[in-house]
Amino acid sequence: MASPSSRKPRRARAAAGAERPALPRLWLRVDLAAEEQVGPGKIRLLELIAEHGSISAAGRAMGMSYRRAWLLVESLNSTFRDPAVTTQHGGPRGGGAELTDFGRDLVRRFRSMELAAAAAVAEHLLALDRSRKP
Amino acid sequence: MASPSSRKPRRARAAAGAERPALPRLWLRVDLAAEEQVGPGKIRLLELIAEHGSISAAGRAMGMSYRRAWLLVESLNSTFRDPAVTTQHGGPRGGGAELTDFGRDLVRRFRSMELAAAAAVAEHLLALDRSRKP
Repeated sequence: MASPSSRKPRRARAAAGAERPALPRLWLRVDLAAEEQVGPGKIRLLELIAEHGSISAAGRAMGMSYRRAWLLVESLNSTFRDPAVTTQHGGPRGGGAELTDFGRDLVRRFRSMELAAAAAVAEHLLALDRSRKP
Repeated sequence: MASPSSRKPRRARAAAGAERPALPRLWLRVDLAAEEQVGPGKIRLLELIAEHGSISAAGRAMGMSYRRAWLLVESLNSTFRDPAVTTQHGGPRGGGAELTDFGRDLVRRFRSMELAAAAAVAEHLLALDRSRKP
C-alpha cells in the first residue's frame, strides 16, 4: 500500500481510477436497455466488493455513499437473471457481501471486453494521440 | 422532417439518440488526457454541424444550448493540432460553420472505432443480453 497513489485523497484516487490503464485509453459501457447499463463504475464496485467483502467498504473505496453503492448493486441485480452480489444479514460478518458466480463472470467478461475492444482500435487510439497538440 | 421522431419533444429526441444502433450496444469514449475526451456526443455534434452548416443549429438538433455546443467544439479544437470545425464570421452565411478535413477524418475514425470495437465484443454483448431477466 506504499504506491504513490495511496497518498492521494480518496476522491482524487477514485477520480483518477486506480488500476486504470495509461492514456490514451478506451472507455466503454454496455447499454442493454434504456435503464440497464454496465460500465467501468459498476464493474469496479464489484471488484471492490469481492476484495472488501462489503458493499459499504467497496463504496467508500470509490468515494461514494453506501446508498449510491447499494443502488448500483441493486441495478445490476435487477438487470440480470442471476444476482451479481449476495448479502448476509447478521452472523459473524453481519452486513457482509460477496460476488456470486455470475458476478465474477460479469467482471471477467467486462474486463475481457475492454481488452478486446482496445486491441481492435489500438491503431486508431495511437493515431488520435499523435494528432493531439504537442 | 415528417419522420415519426420529429414529433417528440427536442430533449426526448436527443436522449433517444437518433441514428443510434439497436440494443444491446457498446458505448465508447476515447480519453486522450484528463480533460481531453472524444465520445459519441461530440462526434454527433460534428456530424450535425456538417449537415446544418451551423454550430447553433447542430446544438439545437441535439437539444443543447448554443453555449454548450460551442464549448464542445472549442474543446475539440483545443485538443488537436488541427481544428475540427471552422467558423465564418459575416459574409452571406454569417455565423456558418463547417468541418475541416481533420474534422471529417475524426468523425470517420470514431465511427470506425465504434464498429471495430462492437465487432470485437459481439459475442460478449450477445451473452450479456442472454443473461438479462426475461
